[in-house]
Amino acid sequence: MRPLRCAVVGLGRLGKWHAEHLIQMKDAEVVVVCDPFADRAKEMARELQVPYHETNASRVMQREDIDAVIIAASTGAHYALIQEALRYDKAVFVEKPLATTLEEAASIKATMATLPQSFLQVGFMRRFDPAYEVAKQHIAKGAIGEPKYYKGITRDPGSPPAEFIKNSGGIFLDLAIHDYDAARFLLGAEVNQVTSCGQTIIHDFMTEYGDIDQSMTFLTFDNGACADIEASRNAFYGYDIRGEIVGTEGTLMIGELAHHDVKLYTKKGATYDLVPGFPERFGSAYQRELAAFTEAVQNKQPSPVTVEDGLKALEIAYAATHSFKQQQSVRIESHVPF
Amino acid sequence: MRPLRCAVVGLGRLGKWHAEHLIQMKDAEVVVVCDPFADRAKEMARELQVPYHETNASRVMQREDIDAVIIAASTGAHYALIQEALRYDKAVFVEKPLATTLEEAASIKATMATLPQSFLQVGFMRRFDPAYEVAKQHIAKGAIGEPKYYKGITRDPGSPPAEFIKNSGGIFLDLAIHDYDAARFLLGAEVNQVTSCGQTIIHDFMTEYGDIDQSMTFLTFDNGACADIEASRNAFYGYDIRGEIVGTEGTLMIGELAHHDVKLYTKKGATYDLVPGFPERFGSAYQRELAAFTEAVQNKQPSPVTVEDGLKALEIAYAATHSFKQQQSVRIESHVPF
Amino acid sequence: MRPLRCAVVGLGRLGKWHAEHLIQMKDAEVVVVCDPFADRAKEMARELQVPYHETNASRVMQREDIDAVIIAASTGAHYALIQEALRYDKAVFVEKPLATTLEEAASIKATMATLPQSFLQVGFMRRFDPAYEVAKQHIAKGAIGEPKYYKGITRDPGSPPAEFIKNSGGIFLDLAIHDYDAARFLLGAEVNQVTSCGQTIIHDFMTEYGDIDQSMTFLTFDNGACADIEASRNAFYGYDIRGEIVGTEGTLMIGELAHHDVKLYTKKGATYDLVPGFPERFGSAYQRELAAFTEAVQNKQPSPVTVEDGLKALEIAYAATHSFKQQQSVRIESHVPF
Amino acid sequence: MRPLRCAVVGLGRLGKWHAEHLIQMKDAEVVVVCDPFADRAKEMARELQVPYHETNASRVMQREDIDAVIIAASTGAHYALIQEALRYDKAVFVEKPLATTLEEAASIKATMATLPQSFLQVGFMRRFDPAYEVAKQHIAKGAIGEPKYYKGITRDPGSPPAEFIKNSGGIFLDLAIHDYDAARFLLGAEVNQVTSCGQTIIHDFMTEYGDIDQSMTFLTFDNGACADIEASRNAFYGYDIRGEIVGTEGTLMIGELAHHDVKLYTKKGATYDLVPGFPERFGSAYQRELAAFTEAVQNKQPSPVTVEDGLKALEIAYAATHSFKQQQSVRIESHVPF
Repeated sequence: MRPLRCAVVGLGRLGKWHAEHLIQMKDAEVVVVCDPFADRAKEMARELQVPYHETNASRVMQREDIDAVIIAASTGAHYALIQEALRYDKAVFVEKPLATTLEEAASIKATMATLPQSFLQVGFMRRFDPAYEVAKQHIAKGAIGEPKYYKGITRDPGSPPAEFIKNSGGIFLDLAIHDYDAARFLLGAEVNQVTSCGQTIIHDFMTEYGDIDQSMTFLTFDNGACADIEASRNAFYGYDIRGEIVGTEGTLMIGELAHHDVKLYTKKGATYDLVPGFPERFGSAYQRELAAFTEAVQNKQPSPVTVEDGLKALEIAYAATHSFKQQQSVRIESHVPF
Repeated sequence: MRPLRCAVVGLGRLGKWHAEHLIQMKDAEVVVVCDPFADRAKEMARELQVPYHETNASRVMQREDIDAVIIAASTGAHYALIQEALRYDKAVFVEKPLATTLEEAASIKATMATLPQSFLQVGFMRRFDPAYEVAKQHIAKGAIGEPKYYKGITRDPGSPPAEFIKNSGGIFLDLAIHDYDAARFLLGAEVNQVTSCGQTIIHDFMTEYGDIDQSMTFLTFDNGACADIEASRNAFYGYDIRGEIVGTEGTLMIGELAHHDVKLYTKKGATYDLVPGFPERFGSAYQRELAAFTEAVQNKQPSPVTVEDGLKALEIAYAATHSFKQQQSVRIESHVPF
Repeated sequence: MRPLRCAVVGLGRLGKWHAEHLIQMKDAEVVVVCDPFADRAKEMARELQVPYHETNASRVMQREDIDAVIIAASTGAHYALIQEALRYDKAVFVEKPLATTLEEAASIKATMATLPQSFLQVGFMRRFDPAYEVAKQHIAKGAIGEPKYYKGITRDPGSPPAEFIKNSGGIFLDLAIHDYDAARFLLGAEVNQVTSCGQTIIHDFMTEYGDIDQSMTFLTFDNGACADIEASRNAFYGYDIRGEIVGTEGTLMIGELAHHDVKLYTKKGATYDLVPGFPERFGSAYQRELAAFTEAVQNKQPSPVTVEDGLKALEIAYAATHSFKQQQSVRIESHVPF
Repeated sequence: MRPLRCAVVGLGRLGKWHAEHLIQMKDAEVVVVCDPFADRAKEMARELQVPYHETNASRVMQREDIDAVIIAASTGAHYALIQEALRYDKAVFVEKPLATTLEEAASIKATMATLPQSFLQVGFMRRFDPAYEVAKQHIAKGAIGEPKYYKGITRDPGSPPAEFIKNSGGIFLDLAIHDYDAARFLLGAEVNQVTSCGQTIIHDFMTEYGDIDQSMTFLTFDNGACADIEASRNAFYGYDIRGEIVGTEGTLMIGELAHHDVKLYTKKGATYDLVPGFPERFGSAYQRELAAFTEAVQNKQPSPVTVEDGLKALEIAYAATHSFKQQQSVRIESHVPF
């Protein structure tokens, strides 16, 4: 089978990384890289030996030698890029969050409903992390009985810069959203109520932007399960991602923090290095989500992370943001205007 | 120095255990055991070789050969027993929670304010667990900078019987209270707001009593720190107690679940046993809290867990119960009528 | 039942510790402590509130108010003390090694054969460590199929002083002997060949006394199993005791080195304290071996660690010493002159 | 720079794996695959989209469009293939062991001495495993003071088939050799004496071929360090590779056996999967050794694992085999006839 011919739109850290991963795959190739900054696009094409580079995304979408578009542009640009890619029959891979507003997300969903062949995958890469995948398999085999509780911890090793925080949509939308998706994925149920709390405990500058660095979301699900999710910018010791699923007969735990398999013992005790950041923690997950994307598109299989998944996570994130601001629980239904 | 002459009042599981621990100590002796059930008191005296047994607590309090009273009766009886013990100048060790209501707790505090020599220690045994103690020492030495976040997990291996749940005061008062105290102890600050959530996910019978089996409390503190605390009856795999303290320069983790140091490797993978219950997890903490009690009383030192600690934890537990029922955050001040 | 009335002979570190453990037990009491240094005996009696103290062991043995003798004197004194204790019908607990020579050990065994009521337990405390005990239970239940290989690691945190090394009998007799016993205990078989190697890698002073600080013993057993045992004085990071038993269907691992359940995470990585020494590692094993001694003597049960066990371990240790010096394998039979 | 044009000779499991790894690398390409079995070569070329396939290795060596030869043929063929590859100026990567005899190995070394541009790398992939690499870096930085002891454990999950064992050269040459190299690599010293023991404890068929399934090698080094190395075919629970380096100020430990980061807790305890085999354990090491090979050849850097390393490991393995058969220690010098 011919390799999947891809365009990568948006050449920040993640865009570049996706391009590199695609290039290493047998079944995919990167035909064009695109970024509004001409120098960046040109340099990336040279460095990665990609044939074409481009500053105008519309021209990318119109190319006939392109099967798929990987969208890693800023969130504000997602909506227009997706709609245009869908119009030109490109398979779409889009970084999370799917869009800026629920209305945009619903509109994308509506567009796809009119295009039976359309394909969109949202970049919730944790679903492809070997640990989350094994956990899902354990649950499917009944290893913990009926899954009833999800506990998620996502601690970033410090805050992104103020410039990023300003446009990030806040901690629930930018950070906790990974665990909202993981909770839905592992519990196999939909959220019906969201309660969130939090405050700034270290990064005082965040209050200026209405954001916080420490948050807790409590979710209840339509099947009687519930979840608690801590999202934090305060793990000065490394990148700390943990997950648990409590079931009626057992519990699954994810969360190895050791960076590599070497321990040093001295008079001061044992020491070992901790996972420093997301590339080290989720490197293989990022590779595997693109391999799954390529395989699904090539074989006309359903998307492993659908527009619906992107929309649902966004709903929860907006409800959490609302709950935090209003200091009260939010029913999910009351917030879905479509 | 003469051993501390103790009476143990209330001979349920904990009362018996306290008696056994006191008997093993060089610096203490159990002079009398007391329980409303005459047979139980008599049998316990025989089994533990305690000289006297009694059904009437007032007669115990009046004995002149008693220095201290260990109160492990039902919570409803705490108030009257403490007041009587204080009146007769006995040092008091009382199981948590200190009392049934905040008014009772405040009244005990008021009584003690009038008795400069009075001594009361509340049974928050986690403070005497080696792990919590080492964590506290690390914090005092500045190992994590300024402590800013506490995360507590307390999962019981299943629910107590309905009979117990009925009079337990609910999960916040009965179970989460241990972590409320631990959070105050480790963060060194006072709670000013409480938000709690939860629901019954497994033990349906609890709804009949207005109780739940899965709860989350989010606390904010007067020094800008915060905390999240999961209390649950749903750890069917064992007794699962974990704690973390996140600081400005590092994080401390407590939570070993392995029951002993043996791993079995077979074709099915690695397996090891998990801590089954609180006696296995906190055995030494229970011993050490009584050793600390004995030492403090003998040497006229301040109580390591004061009436104030008992009162504060009760305040948080009541606020959490209120927050859960009203589905809104509760300021601590607004609930303290004294 | 009347508590077991004990005498402790030899009041060095272990002797004192044994006395303290006995005093804490309900079923035992220490009637007399004995040491050639009068001041030490007197001081110990005072400190531990023991009624009598003594410098002459023979007078201890002759006391009629003594049921059992705990021998923690120097190894050179074991033989005479055991023989005298047996003559006066005292139950004997003796620290390892049983005796200085195989001839002495055989002679003790012969004496006991003539005294059907005699009782002797050797202080191989690892058999009473919860981990070794659980491992033994796993094996008995068939969890690893047929046990076929034992791997032992015993690393002391540095060397004892030269004064001790001079009279210790060497690393095989003084240190590796614990694992010789553990291997017999866990594999349930007898050694028929011993090969040992080693050298001094750090403590150069040892060569003066013909001793080494790093040793390896390879054992083969009469049932086809084998074992390797590292004994070392070079664990500058703590007290490092590990054991494995490989079977036809699985493997058991013992060897937790974490001192307590607290991990500290900082920018420098994770750190935790390591077990510093044998009191922290084997505290409960020392308590439990005396509890087992007391129970067995009181109930006229067989000794849990017999004179035969003491003799066999000594045989292996002597064979290992011989093998190291001669640089060749040693058959056990060829070294047993009785 | 032009990618390194490679030929892979010998298309068994490792040969195929090497070819796949080279294909994924940007800096290398596989021009021809070669195997005496025509069908296998043809099929592999088709599957991996390699331009040429060949049954005659001499014709491969003579190709001018080949820069490097990866030799993964049977050990008996190594010598002739290496000599021919060197003659035609090909860079050589050869699987361990370097050759069948010390004479062959010495002859290869002599040939290379006459060819200043020649390049040969031996496939000791552990040196490229992240854990061994980090350990080496720790040692270089002085984290453990002076390295003084190496402890290696290599347990295969069962035995290869009899057909393989027959021609494997025995457990010391086939299996323990990885740890001989690792010990030299990590201690930075040369072996001067070898003592080995062992026996068949499970796979009885091995005795027919003079081989054993459980072995222990004790090494002493020219700088006063020593080492013990267990090589075994008896890890029925997985693939168990561990290493320790004890130094004058600390110890490094390698040996994570968990296959992935998921633990399952149930009433039966905690369970997790174990690393099943060498592909899972050393996948990245195999990739990284070829990346290092490619980089060194392209940049005319010295080989990271030289012919000398291959020769030294072989010397130790032969000495160990000899020691085992003669039941005595073997000085390394006495066995090197060149």
